[in-house]
Amino acid sequence: MFIALITDFGTQDSYVGVMKGVIATLCPPAQLIDLTHSLPPQDLYAARFTLLCAYPYLPPGTIFLVVVDPGVGTGRRAIAVQTSRGFLVGPDNGVFSGVLDQAPTVNAVELTNPDYWRLPHPSATFHGRDLFAPVAAHLARGVALEALGPAIQPESLLKLPLTMPVATATGYEGSVQYIDHFGNAATNIPASAVASGPWRLTLGAVTLAAAKTYGEVAPGAALALVGSHGFVEIAVNQGNAQQMLGLKVGDRIHLTHL
Amino acid sequence: MFIALITDFGTQDSYVGVMKGVIATLCPPAQLIDLTHSLPPQDLYAARFTLLCAYPYLPPGTIFLVVVDPGVGTGRRAIAVQTSRGFLVGPDNGVFSGVLDQAPTVNAVELTNPDYWRLPHPSATFHGRDLFAPVAAHLARGVALEALGPAIQPESLLKLPLTMPVATATGYEGSVQYIDHFGNAATNIPASAVASGPWRLTLGAVTLAAAKTYGEVAPGAALALVGSHGFVEIAVNQGNAQQMLGLKVGDRIHLTHL
Amino acid sequence: MFIALITDFGTQDSYVGVMKGVIATLCPPAQLIDLTHSLPPQDLYAARFTLLCAYPYLPPGTIFLVVVDPGVGTGRRAIAVQTSRGFLVGPDNGVFSGVLDQAPTVNAVELTNPDYWRLPHPSATFHGRDLFAPVAAHLARGVALEALGPAIQPESLLKLPLTMPVATATGYEGSVQYIDHFGNAATNIPASAVASGPWRLTLGAVTLAAAKTYGEVAPGAALALVGSHGFVEIAVNQGNAQQMLGLKVGDRIHLTHL
Repeated sequence: MFIALITDFGTQDSYVGVMKGVIATLCPPAQLIDLTHSLPPQDLYAARFTLLCAYPYLPPGTIFLVVVDPGVGTGRRAIAVQTSRGFLVGPDNGVFSGVLDQAPTVNAVELTNPDYWRLPHPSATFHGRDLFAPVAAHLARGVALEALGPAIQPESLLKLPLTMPVATATGYEGSVQYIDHFGNAATNIPASAVASGPWRLTLGAVTLAAAKTYGEVAPGAALALVGSHGFVEIAVNQGNAQQMLGLKVGDRIHLTHL
Repeated sequence: MFIALITDFGTQDSYVGVMKGVIATLCPPAQLIDLTHSLPPQDLYAARFTLLCAYPYLPPGTIFLVVVDPGVGTGRRAIAVQTSRGFLVGPDNGVFSGVLDQAPTVNAVELTNPDYWRLPHPSATFHGRDLFAPVAAHLARGVALEALGPAIQPESLLKLPLTMPVATATGYEGSVQYIDHFGNAATNIPASAVASGPWRLTLGAVTLAAAKTYGEVAPGAALALVGSHGFVEIAVNQGNAQQMLGLKVGDRIHLTHL
Repeated sequence: MFIALITDFGTQDSYVGVMKGVIATLCPPAQLIDLTHSLPPQDLYAARFTLLCAYPYLPPGTIFLVVVDPGVGTGRRAIAVQTSRGFLVGPDNGVFSGVLDQAPTVNAVELTNPDYWRLPHPSATFHGRDLFAPVAAHLARGVALEALGPAIQPESLLKLPLTMPVATATGYEGSVQYIDHFGNAATNIPASAVASGPWRLTLGAVTLAAAKTYGEVAPGAALALVGSHGFVEIAVNQGNAQQMLGLKVGDRIHLTHL
C-alpha cells in the first residue's frame, strides 16, 4: 500500500521523518512516496496545485497525506475522504479542493475517533505526527474509513476561492497560478483552451509565441506552451522565466487565438 | 528492519544516495527513513537535537545512523550503541548524547572490526560510506553488536557541553537551542517547567504570552508555547519568528511563572 | 530490484514524486534510491559526475534513471544501456558518458517502442514521467532490453567534451570539475596521479599542502587531499573552500610532485 506525502515541513528538520516513523511503527510494510515537503510555508494554493498535478500518477488505492495546516489545533476539521482512486487525509482547509473538483467522492469522514490517533490528546501544533500520520497508517492497514469518525457531506468540504480564467472575444484572460523550481510559470488556462488552433500569450508588454517544447526556441528565449501538468505555461529554453520576466503568482496574462 | 538516517551531507550531491546504495547492497530488504540530511555542516548540536526529537517515534529496533563527522579520519572513535529501543551508529563526538541521557544503554562497542566495513582501509574522508553504512546494514542483517568490536564503557561516550536552563525565583532562565524551517525557535526549557500554571516568556525587550497553539493569536503575532518536541518554543502565527524577532541559537530567554 | 534516480527537478515540485508514482504503478515492488534531484538545472556535467561517483556503490542490477534533459521533445535520442553492473535509462546527451568510459557496454537500444511508455504520445516536456520512468519500471519487471527498441552502436552514444588533465614536467595541470554542498572542490586529477609520493597543489597565488583528511590541518585552514570520489580535492577543515578561496567549476589548478 502506498502513502504519498505533501507537506510544507521542509527537509531541514526531522518533522517529516517523525511522521514516517509513526507510519512505519503502525504499518511497517507501507511504501512511502514523497511528493514534496518544500511548499512555501502555509501555502494552501501550492498544496492544492501540487496534489492536483500528482494525483493521477500514483497507484490506485494510494493514500494521499497532505499536511499544510496553518490552523492546526484550532477548530478546523481533520478529514479523510475516499475517492474513486484512493484516499485523502489531512486538514479540511481547501488543500484537497482541486482533486475533489474532478474526482467522485465516495465517502468523507471527520477524524474524531482517538482510537486511531497516536495519543488521545494530540500535540496542539503537530497533528501530522499525532493524528494524520496514524490515520493514514491505519487506512493502509485496512481499517475502514467509517471507523475513523462520523460521515460528513462532501459538499461541506472547504474549497479555496480561485481566480478562474475568463473567456474573451479573442481568447482568455487568466493568471499565473504556480511557479516551479525551473522558473516555469503554470497559468490557470487549461490545455483544452488551446486545442483548436494557433495562439499566443501576452503578459504586460511581452508577447510569447506558442510552441510544443522548450527546444523549439533559441536557448535563453521565452515561449508559451502546454505544460506537462495540463495548463498553459510560460518558460525560457534552458533558462528561468520567473527571473527573466519577473513573474509572480497572480500575474495577469492574456491568451489570444490567432 | 528500519534504518533512520541523519547527516549534514545535503541533498545536492550523491553522498546520501551512495550510503543507501552500500546499505542496499549488503541488506536489500532494509527500509530507510530519512530524518534529515540538511543539518548545518558539522553542527553537532543540531544533530543531537534532531536525533533527540525523532528517537521516540521510530519503530522499536530501528538503527539510527548519524553521520555528522568533522573529525572523520582522525582519532575520534567510531561506535555502535544498543539501547532499549534500538541501535545508534556513528562517530563518538556527542551527537548521541541527547538520547543517551534518556535511554538506558544496553551495550556499546568501538567499531574496529574491518570484517564489517566495506573495505579494510576506508576512505579517510567518508566513513559514512565505508564504515558506518556497512555496520548499520550488518546490524540490520542480524549481526550481533559484539561482533563489531570491543565493548566500551557507556560512561566513556562523549557528551556535548550544553547550556542548561537555570531555575530562578520567578521561573527559569534559558536559551534558544534550535531554530526550525518555519523559523520557530525551540528553547532548552522543557514542558515540565510550565506544567504547573500560567507563564510568559521574555527575550530582550519583548514579552510573549503563552498559548496552546499558533492560531490562538492573530496572524503575524508572536507567541510562546510548548512545541511538539516537548520544549518551550517561540513562534509567529503564519509567520517566521526567527526573521521577525531576529532570533539565533544561544539567545537568552526568561520564563516567568505568573 | 533497485532503481536509482538522478534529476535536476528539485524537490519543491511534484515532478520526482510523479515519476515515482508512475514506477510504483507499473512495478510496485521496485525499491527507489534518490541519488540527487538538486543538480543545477540542465547541468549535464554535474549529472555525469554524480552518476560516475555513485555508480560503483549501488547493488548489481540497479537501473540508473537519469533525467537531465534540456533537449526533451527535440530530436535527441532516448536510450537504455545494459552494462556489466546494471542498466542506464535516460536521454542520449552525454550524462552517461563518465560511466560508459569505464564500464563495458553489453547492449544499447533506442527507446522507440511505445508499448513500454505511459502513453503513445508522451508530453513534449516531461519524458521523465511518460517515457523514461515507465521504461525503468518495465526493466525492473524483467522486460528484456531488446523489447524497448532497436539496438544502437555503443560507439554512437554521445560523449560530453571534457577538459582532461595534462601531464607536465613537474606534475599535472588540471581544473575543478565539481563543487559539493560542503564547498569541497573535486578536480579532474585522479588519485592515481598522486600515488607515487608527496605533492602539493597550486591555484593562482595559493599553494595547498597535501593531507590525508580534513582534521590534519587547523579548523579554517585549506588543504588538498584525495576525495572519497577518487579525485584530488580542495577543502577547508570545518569550513567552505568554495567560499573561502572563491572557487568555481573550470578553475585551473597545478599539481606538483615534490
